[in-house]
Amino acid sequence: MRTTTGWRADGPAQKLHRTSLQRRELRADDLAVRVDHCGVCHTDLHSINAADGPVVPGHEFTGTVTDIGRDVTGFAVGDPVAVGNIVDSCGECAMCLAGQENFCHEFPTLTYGGTDRHDATPTLGAYSREYVVRESFAYALPRGWEAAAVAPLMCAGITVWEPLRALGIGSGSRVAVAGLGGLGHLAVKFAVALGAETTVISRSPGKLDDARRLGAQDLLVSGDDAQMARSRDRFDVIIDTISAVHDPGPYLRLAAVDGTLVQVGHLGSVSLNAMDLLIGRKKFTSAGSGGRPATREMLDFCAEHDITADVEVLPSSQVNEALERLGRNDVRYRFVLDMSDLD
Amino acid sequence: MRTTTGWRADGPAQKLHRTSLQRRELRADDLAVRVDHCGVCHTDLHSINAADGPVVPGHEFTGTVTDIGRDVTGFAVGDPVAVGNIVDSCGECAMCLAGQENFCHEFPTLTYGGTDRHDATPTLGAYSREYVVRESFAYALPRGWEAAAVAPLMCAGITVWEPLRALGIGSGSRVAVAGLGGLGHLAVKFAVALGAETTVISRSPGKLDDARRLGAQDLLVSGDDAQMARSRDRFDVIIDTISAVHDPGPYLRLAAVDGTLVQVGHLGSVSLNAMDLLIGRKKFTSAGSGGRPATREMLDFCAEHDITADVEVLPSSQVNEALERLGRNDVRYRFVLDMSDLD
Repeated sequence: MRTTTGWRADGPAQKLHRTSLQRRELRADDLAVRVDHCGVCHTDLHSINAADGPVVPGHEFTGTVTDIGRDVTGFAVGDPVAVGNIVDSCGECAMCLAGQENFCHEFPTLTYGGTDRHDATPTLGAYSREYVVRESFAYALPRGWEAAAVAPLMCAGITVWEPLRALGIGSGSRVAVAGLGGLGHLAVKFAVALGAETTVISRSPGKLDDARRLGAQDLLVSGDDAQMARSRDRFDVIIDTISAVHDPGPYLRLAAVDGTLVQVGHLGSVSLNAMDLLIGRKKFTSAGSGGRPATREMLDFCAEHDITADVEVLPSSQVNEALERLGRNDVRYRFVLDMSDLD
Repeated sequence: MRTTTGWRADGPAQKLHRTSLQRRELRADDLAVRVDHCGVCHTDLHSINAADGPVVPGHEFTGTVTDIGRDVTGFAVGDPVAVGNIVDSCGECAMCLAGQENFCHEFPTLTYGGTDRHDATPTLGAYSREYVVRESFAYALPRGWEAAAVAPLMCAGITVWEPLRALGIGSGSRVAVAGLGGLGHLAVKFAVALGAETTVISRSPGKLDDARRLGAQDLLVSGDDAQMARSRDRFDVIIDTISAVHDPGPYLRLAAVDGTLVQVGHLGSVSLNAMDLLIGRKKFTSAGSGGRPATREMLDFCAEHDITADVEVLPSSQVNEALERLGRNDVRYRFVLDMSDLD
């Protein structure tokens, strides 16, 4: 086994502490990656709070290849890479063959909190100085790209990219993004770059300047009933990134006939009133993560359009502070941990 | 006022009794229609069970024009007509202007249980020998078309027609219809005539012959876990006509990536697991009733393809028996009341 250092919580809602971690020796198709930067995702917070055992979070990271397995052909030592929240899948089901490994019929192997398909060990995340990953789930990055701000593309980014693409967003589309956090600010950047007329929906009118700076034309205040009523039936697609449990009804009413509300912030059980869907044949869906082709496409699009996340970079030793601030949405717009302090 | 005869329930879950009813005198744009046949819809049953006052049900009917208001130009006495579950709308909102009167921002006037927009009287349905209706919400029928079997197109039919059309069903589409009742059997006929490969999903394997006779290729038994598992990700659109409360999860798993489940049988509150949507980016929606252009289009399509409902015609004096049998799904596939016994 390989030994590295990382941050682990040992039970529900416990603080993370620095500890030694084991990684597998490289298999023929593995890369060893020095983790340079890892984003802090809401899922990390949920996983720690619900932990029924030790958890090492972290599933959107960038780093540098330090070693390669004997059959690796796509990467060399020194290459910059990115990894997201899926590190393996069955490779044989219809979903995997279609490049939708995120929908693998055997369920994809998650970057942490999953089980390795070969040695059945639990996967440990990238709040850690090293990660070992199959080459086919690592993505080459252009050299010199700002690695800290790229990391959040790998979970927050792809989660909003896939639905925007699947729903055909482009010039002339009318997109609203509810909630301006890690997912929301990337959804705005993507929608704008795809050519859509883009509106932010927020509780806070104070986010107007930020919304404009991100490229949105407009901000709709969710608590302002008159504003909300004026925007009835207005948007082709609404990306709802709100992480708290909430009624989708008021957001569905903003969707145009045959429009779609994509809930990506809150997963779990959702209660809907069928009349909120019936009136306007409005569609409700969800999204999360992405397949390999879509992830590659997103990274290429971001490189071409100079899109990265707006991040606040903290040394990894401040991971508990980052999680605590994320819990009260005190971040614009994504924390990224700098792992170099683990050396 | 005009006097006619009909069937009325006077309180929750009470039997309907024959009674005299009042209709308004014709306004300039009204038709008086002799109701010849009226379909018996699940909504009728719900309305009677939930009645907080007298209710005269009936909102899918065919009949004959017996008188016209002075400004009526599209109909003459003797014309065969059909009327559905909407008899008026504001006519001025974006939805009405787009021909989606069923989504009118002021809510359309329902054929019964609504409130007339001009004189504020409660609307009384078509379990009655005469109905008075604005000409713009009556639809001309080809002479000689089997009127009893056409009546159910006006609610059951349009409810499944609109989503099939909005979702672009045609040659090469894979459609499943869950539940083979009033809505379901019409959804099968429409999907087949639109060129889709069509499958029925039913609790009962005994419905295979019926499914084939209606044009479906296949029957999937919902209680057969192995069959259901083999059909995972198989259908572009699933029209779920099941009227009982049920978990949409097993049906969502049958939808292909980016596929859509349209729940039309059970309205009200729906509980969904976001993961059932996330895995496959599956969409959940509902539908009911239709706008005037879609209703006209459906009637023309049905006339061209010789599609009507499979009906069991009963004299209106057997209305209580029809409702009781409908309550236990003992009908293939729609009861239609013959109103001539009201003369």
